Amino acid sequence: MRIHVQNLPGDPQFAVTPAQWDAAAARAPDVSGGHAVTFGETPEAFQAAIGEAEAVVAQTGAVRRLFPADAPRLKLIYCTSAGLDSLAPFNWLPPGAALLNNRGTHGAKVSEYGIMALLMLAAGVPGFVTAQRAGRWAPRHGSVLAGRRVTVAGLGTLGGAVAEQAARFGMRVTGVRTRAEPHPACTEVVALDELDSVLGGTEFLALALPLTDATRGVLDRRRLALLPPGAGVVNIGRGALLDQDALCDALEGGHLSGAVLDVFVPEPVPPGHRLWTTPNLVMTPHVSADDPDTYVPLSLDIFFQNLRAFSDGEPLPNQFDTTRGY
Amino acid sequence: MRIHVQNLPGDPQFAVTPAQWDAAAARAPDVSGGHAVTFGETPEAFQAAIGEAEAVVAQTGAVRRLFPADAPRLKLIYCTSAGLDSLAPFNWLPPGAALLNNRGTHGAKVSEYGIMALLMLAAGVPGFVTAQRAGRWAPRHGSVLAGRRVTVAGLGTLGGAVAEQAARFGMRVTGVRTRAEPHPACTEVVALDELDSVLGGTEFLALALPLTDATRGVLDRRRLALLPPGAGVVNIGRGALLDQDALCDALEGGHLSGAVLDVFVPEPVPPGHRLWTTPNLVMTPHVSADDPDTYVPLSLDIFFQNLRAFSDGEPLPNQFDTTRGY
Repeated sequence: MRIHVQNLPGDPQFAVTPAQWDAAAARAPDVSGGHAVTFGETPEAFQAAIGEAEAVVAQTGAVRRLFPADAPRLKLIYCTSAGLDSLAPFNWLPPGAALLNNRGTHGAKVSEYGIMALLMLAAGVPGFVTAQRAGRWAPRHGSVLAGRRVTVAGLGTLGGAVAEQAARFGMRVTGVRTRAEPHPACTEVVALDELDSVLGGTEFLALALPLTDATRGVLDRRRLALLPPGAGVVNIGRGALLDQDALCDALEGGHLSGAVLDVFVPEPVPPGHRLWTTPNLVMTPHVSADDPDTYVPLSLDIFFQNLRAFSDGEPLPNQFDTTRGY
Repeated sequence: MRIHVQNLPGDPQFAVTPAQWDAAAARAPDVSGGHAVTFGETPEAFQAAIGEAEAVVAQTGAVRRLFPADAPRLKLIYCTSAGLDSLAPFNWLPPGAALLNNRGTHGAKVSEYGIMALLMLAAGVPGFVTAQRAGRWAPRHGSVLAGRRVTVAGLGTLGGAVAEQAARFGMRVTGVRTRAEPHPACTEVVALDELDSVLGGTEFLALALPLTDATRGVLDRRRLALLPPGAGVVNIGRGALLDQDALCDALEGGHLSGAVLDVFVPEPVPPGHRLWTTPNLVMTPHVSADDPDTYVPLSLDIFFQNLRAFSDGEPLPNQFDTTRGY
């Protein structure tokens, strides 16, 4: 098979190197042999390869910039991201090509970020950071996580991993997903359109949904008001899942006790933006899910799993559903 | 037995109430009956009770203020703190009275603070908080904890709990204690006077020692320089365990990547102090070990365990060694 690997220029932490490719190939010897593999990071390199390529492995930003393209033999486009909302609408997808994401790569890292964020909210760290900025000693004692109630919206790789960590710390976990199917880490699961019914009993709300037409703005001003006073919010999904201004208002007004956000609209957050000075808010610059030591190796392992399924004529485990949007 | 409970005025979160006493007594029916129990929070209430009291249960600040006292019948002084360094020197202790601390109360809460602090350091949160203060988007991806090396200095209730959590997250834990006895959460344990030998391989250093003559200033400028570039520091013990100015220098100069500190010299940290503006530092106001929901109940359970041992003529599990200082 002709496989082309297209990297973004100037992103050494997350680019796929030939050495990483060879190492992953050695871990999947049954499906990795006999391919003609090319690497590129310029548009020219892409154009030189795409006409003959049967599979593309690419950073999502490269796909966004370089498609549509004349790719008559292309069967697989594997993006090294899980959320492909930035590629919508998907009318650029060549006919006959399946779009794949790297769902599964982010679990270990995001589970640590998620439990860190919940521990920070329970301990009051967003408030301490705000007090520190003002040079103010303001003790407030927080309780342990055991027995406390977290609602995790989204139970895919990200939300599922957070729910599992929260359960491990003894929290009572309510899950929210498209359909109310049970999840082993959750004491209850409700459908997304039942979200309102659980907000009043939610001490901590963690957003880990993909961004789709159904989830955009899901945490709006009305729903923020349904959270009990003193609740905390975590967002590791996409910035547009929530009404940022309403969230800032709820933090400034004291309805929420704190928030830990990793995703924003827009990114990067521009200088002077209101978010930077909102109290009781800890911001991290979209780093919650990506571990540079394991990201590319795990992504390539998942690619080879999908290549194996493709060779065997089986359903592709990481097929991205462009209609659902995840 | 005549038991007097002395609270600090104006500290409702950590004062022992009659209702909490009754609840704890009901959990220890074999040793809690037949006592005459008084409660007070003023010096007058203390003076009225201390002449006849056989046991005192008190917040440590009250002991510091009210002793020495004429207490001829006193057998037990139970302080609802673990670190009693603020009561040294101990020449105020009435002859015949044993001093007890509430060692064991803080484990659950401090284990959560400890792992939170390590997760924050691994994810780069102290740097993000500093960047947020400046309104600056500065991504830097951190790796998961698994396989990374933490050194926990002190393996009592605090350090032991942190070491256990770190091991649970797959970290390689080096313990440091007075004598190099093994600990189940540690892959190796070295004696405190061997500390230098492990600093070079320490990615994260967590201080959880009691403050004694042997530990004061243990993390001095010379030892900070022995840590590898990019290391992170957590302090949940006492502020005087480290040279604060040297730590601030190491953060400003970039030798350390971050620090999460809960204890300081002095406390409260005064307005305008250098600490407030030191980069890559997250400060919390001495809250790492105290869970207001469980603190008093756990402390009272430990008191009754000691009262049982006292009644049975057994060694007191929480006897404080005024010579060692812990």
